[in-house]
Amino acid sequence: MSPRKQILHDFLHRIWGEQDLSAIPEFIADSYIIHNDPGDPWDGRTLSRDEFRNRLTTSRSVAPDQRFTPVHMTEDGDRIAVAWTWEGTHLGDMPGLPATGRSLRMTGLTIYFFEGNRLCGHWQVTDRLGIYRQMTAPDQNSGN
Amino acid sequence: MSPRKQILHDFLHRIWGEQDLSAIPEFIADSYIIHNDPGDPWDGRTLSRDEFRNRLTTSRSVAPDQRFTPVHMTEDGDRIAVAWTWEGTHLGDMPGLPATGRSLRMTGLTIYFFEGNRLCGHWQVTDRLGIYRQMTAPDQNSGN
Repeated sequence: MSPRKQILHDFLHRIWGEQDLSAIPEFIADSYIIHNDPGDPWDGRTLSRDEFRNRLTTSRSVAPDQRFTPVHMTEDGDRIAVAWTWEGTHLGDMPGLPATGRSLRMTGLTIYFFEGNRLCGHWQVTDRLGIYRQMTAPDQNSGN
Repeated sequence: MSPRKQILHDFLHRIWGEQDLSAIPEFIADSYIIHNDPGDPWDGRTLSRDEFRNRLTTSRSVAPDQRFTPVHMTEDGDRIAVAWTWEGTHLGDMPGLPATGRSLRMTGLTIYFFEGNRLCGHWQVTDRLGIYRQMTAPDQNSGN
């Protein structure tokens, strides 16, 4: 695994999986641009590290046990694209989507942009229709 | 642009944009695996060229003027990830989603797998919640 692929692997585990806030300065550049991320409340914005921390803790509150598993990585210049699966338990409310306690599963793809050994932005699409259906399906379909 | 990036660029234009069926043997390997593509009726299947042609013509019938615009490509070994925008006019019916005549816009990311200079599969996520909302929004929001 290349050095930057290892960094990205660790970032997904420590930041998004374990919410290790003390590691944010290690992984995140002074500013972080969300180039494309439909449905994300911060889509299109440039975040400071404090704003990145706020996005992280807010996003994770929906499924505090969430974990990303990288499936494929392609590295080219200052960018790495990663295809991932995501799993978590729906324990926090979202607007219009109260917590269900269900096990959720989603796939997505993200291009991460590097500045040196830190991340300065991403371009992402997640299967939010899939997650929406899992959150709103009748009870007999929970976990699907 | 690398040779394979040029091939992928041409594939998106000629196959998905112009539906040049005669070019399928040039771009598609003997079999084509859809590793991940939530919402695609062929998700998880291995397609022959004839089945790929059927998927192409069926998918394109929803928006016959559709066009993909590559935004970022990352190439690594036998794989290229491409971030793209998609535009088209909703002129064909989908199950439960009759044609609206609206201008649609979507983003997505795809990892394409190469076998020599031809494509042998993909791993993809599209923003299908975004497109669903554009198809079902009240009339005053058409085109959003």
